[in-house]
Amino acid sequence: MIIKEFINKKKKGLEHTKYEIKEFIAKYVDGKVPDYQVAAWLMAVNFQGMTKNEIVGLTDVMVHSGETLDLSGTEGFKVDKHSTGGVGDKVSIILAPLAQSAGCQVPMISGRGLGHTGGTLDKLESIPGFNVNLTEQDFANYIKQYGLAMGGQTEKLVPADSKLYSLRDVTATVRSIPLITASILSKKIAEDIDGLVMDVKTGNGSFMPELSGSEELANTLKSVGEEFDLDIKAIITDMNQPLGKAVGNWLEVKECIEVLDGGGPEDLKEVTLDLTAWMVVLSGLEKNYTKAKEKLQEKLNNGEAKERFIQMIENQGGDSSYIKNPDKYKDPAHIRTVSSQEEGFVQSIDTYKVGMAGVELGAGRLELGNEIYPEVGIVFDKKIGDYVAATEHICEIHTRDQESFKRAREKILDAFEIGENKVDLPPRIYDTV
Amino acid sequence: MIIKEFINKKKKGLEHTKYEIKEFIAKYVDGKVPDYQVAAWLMAVNFQGMTKNEIVGLTDVMVHSGETLDLSGTEGFKVDKHSTGGVGDKVSIILAPLAQSAGCQVPMISGRGLGHTGGTLDKLESIPGFNVNLTEQDFANYIKQYGLAMGGQTEKLVPADSKLYSLRDVTATVRSIPLITASILSKKIAEDIDGLVMDVKTGNGSFMPELSGSEELANTLKSVGEEFDLDIKAIITDMNQPLGKAVGNWLEVKECIEVLDGGGPEDLKEVTLDLTAWMVVLSGLEKNYTKAKEKLQEKLNNGEAKERFIQMIENQGGDSSYIKNPDKYKDPAHIRTVSSQEEGFVQSIDTYKVGMAGVELGAGRLELGNEIYPEVGIVFDKKIGDYVAATEHICEIHTRDQESFKRAREKILDAFEIGENKVDLPPRIYDTV
Repeated sequence: MIIKEFINKKKKGLEHTKYEIKEFIAKYVDGKVPDYQVAAWLMAVNFQGMTKNEIVGLTDVMVHSGETLDLSGTEGFKVDKHSTGGVGDKVSIILAPLAQSAGCQVPMISGRGLGHTGGTLDKLESIPGFNVNLTEQDFANYIKQYGLAMGGQTEKLVPADSKLYSLRDVTATVRSIPLITASILSKKIAEDIDGLVMDVKTGNGSFMPELSGSEELANTLKSVGEEFDLDIKAIITDMNQPLGKAVGNWLEVKECIEVLDGGGPEDLKEVTLDLTAWMVVLSGLEKNYTKAKEKLQEKLNNGEAKERFIQMIENQGGDSSYIKNPDKYKDPAHIRTVSSQEEGFVQSIDTYKVGMAGVELGAGRLELGNEIYPEVGIVFDKKIGDYVAATEHICEIHTRDQESFKRAREKILDAFEIGENKVDLPPRIYDTV
Repeated sequence: MIIKEFINKKKKGLEHTKYEIKEFIAKYVDGKVPDYQVAAWLMAVNFQGMTKNEIVGLTDVMVHSGETLDLSGTEGFKVDKHSTGGVGDKVSIILAPLAQSAGCQVPMISGRGLGHTGGTLDKLESIPGFNVNLTEQDFANYIKQYGLAMGGQTEKLVPADSKLYSLRDVTATVRSIPLITASILSKKIAEDIDGLVMDVKTGNGSFMPELSGSEELANTLKSVGEEFDLDIKAIITDMNQPLGKAVGNWLEVKECIEVLDGGGPEDLKEVTLDLTAWMVVLSGLEKNYTKAKEKLQEKLNNGEAKERFIQMIENQGGDSSYIKNPDKYKDPAHIRTVSSQEEGFVQSIDTYKVGMAGVELGAGRLELGNEIYPEVGIVFDKKIGDYVAATEHICEIHTRDQESFKRAREKILDAFEIGENKVDLPPRIYDTV
């Protein structure tokens, strides 16, 4: 195989064979193809795209670049959920125990926050003692015994993805539907699951700001996943404002406890029930989506979902007293409010800027490895469509110092567009594929 | 400067500032930007192109990446010719002494053959003793004293180009008009010349098979060159068949001697006279192009051009007895003919394949550094439009061994398309910009 001819083929818009892609990526992982040739190829892929066959080949070689989990000790259908990421997206923390309470087997592997988006692992780690770094054996055992575990990816799973992602990150080749598809699916296939509910975010706080791109990603994930016998339901949900009211790790866990207690913000509850209901349907526990939702509402009302959440936290070394009594959590140094400087209706919220305000506070990070402060964040009083009087609060900022408060406040005021006209609320769910 | 944002800007089709490009390339040459980020950017440039301002910035930083020649010791207008490369393109070897005989100052810096295309340096080196590796001082002195020198590029001139070209070569990013423009012009500007005649080849043996691409390259070269006060005339000439009859280093020099003796193939003579006439016009030695051509024809007829050629060869250590008596040159081991297997008119010649037949014989190389055999090559009896009887010769192959003869023969028979219909000859000159 002559690598420069392989690159040239993609540059010209011709189709690679599966065999070629496998050889190229396998050689890259082995250090036999240099970064610069892969970088040129990745950029050509950004422009020319990939066919389904090519994405299947890429996904396959990535899955087999390392070890795969073995969950064969657990009988029955295993189902996970994955989100393309957003701001205030804490759905997994409610959904995983909720799905399990309805009978699903939920081996959930999540990621960390990066840039403007948060990560489930960071949120879970805000619970004192909670361990996301499970061994493969512990992870498999928890699934077998409790039907639920939430952990991070080990280095042994899909090393090709880490290597490729690092290169994509520094070569401006992250936002490519085929590459995103192969990255997500390879990790999920290596988890040994049977079904996957994909939350494909759309809007100004997501990786795919345009709905058309989100639709394409949803369809690609579904059709490629099916080639690996993975049942996929892809739901396109809104990310034109933070989901729920809280942004920041512990603040988000606290909001999840509210939902598990039967309350919480309406949008967060709606999206969570929708995604979880599809997990129940995929698992074959309920044929009817509406009935699945009713059953899940019942599991929230009767406290069973919260019980499973507490059980999981205790399994993984977490101190569940913080879940039972969230107010005992340490306060941040300062809690300050941000007042509106204008009067009117919230027209839009630049969700990317809200996420970057979180980074200013230390709730997120620009580079993997940067420290995160679990107690800081933002709680919104106003969202799109709400009326704000002049000097009325739009949010409360939990911060460690005055300086980061100022920077975050500026970003939030900049993110909110306030105007005279009443506005229609964005849909919470756009499409189900 | 955040490199990944710089790359992303080009990916999105936005314009770089000159300052950004200069910083990026200067850092790359200094080893502060890794190859993989430059490779991704080069591929994005292939898809998005560059504006004139961007190409000017790129050319400028490349010129200043190393030393530049100082030909200020020579008074008057200095003019060079450059070709984008082809098969059998030996024009420079006739043109340089011919232009000088008409009064031009000709500091010519040429390159080596690579892939299917030949290189003037390899051709000149087939003359026993001829030295193309002149010091900058010797080069400047020859120009001052004789108005003519032909040499290769030193490592000190435009090191950014060597570094970028090596990376482009392995990342399938060679064929990009902005990158080709900056590469050619930076080297020519660093030569300290005042005028440049560009031979932009078009057709199946050139880097730009489509006429539209050749037109765009010609216009880009001209408009960018003018920003550096370089007078440029760009002529688009045909490369849908080898130029002249000979392909192979010494065989081509021998053909040049025929032209310098007043004979030689018509197409080679026409293209050479055209390009040389523009050098005379650019230099201000003749206002009228037709008169310039007549003057040059006279210099061929009266032997002055050949005299200058012999003088240059002697200056640069070559044995001019081979020019005076070409038949004393050592014969290759075998001279074999290739007979047509069909009867009819030559419809087309795949010139790329002819070039690769030359590589099989050892007349060219696939990688810089591979050895070249000066005596081998091909002399064509038939070209486009010619009638060929069955078993009539289409060419003569000069080869070192039987094996490479067979491979070259196969490629040549494959390159020739023979059919019933009479065909129109392709134009030799398409456009003058």
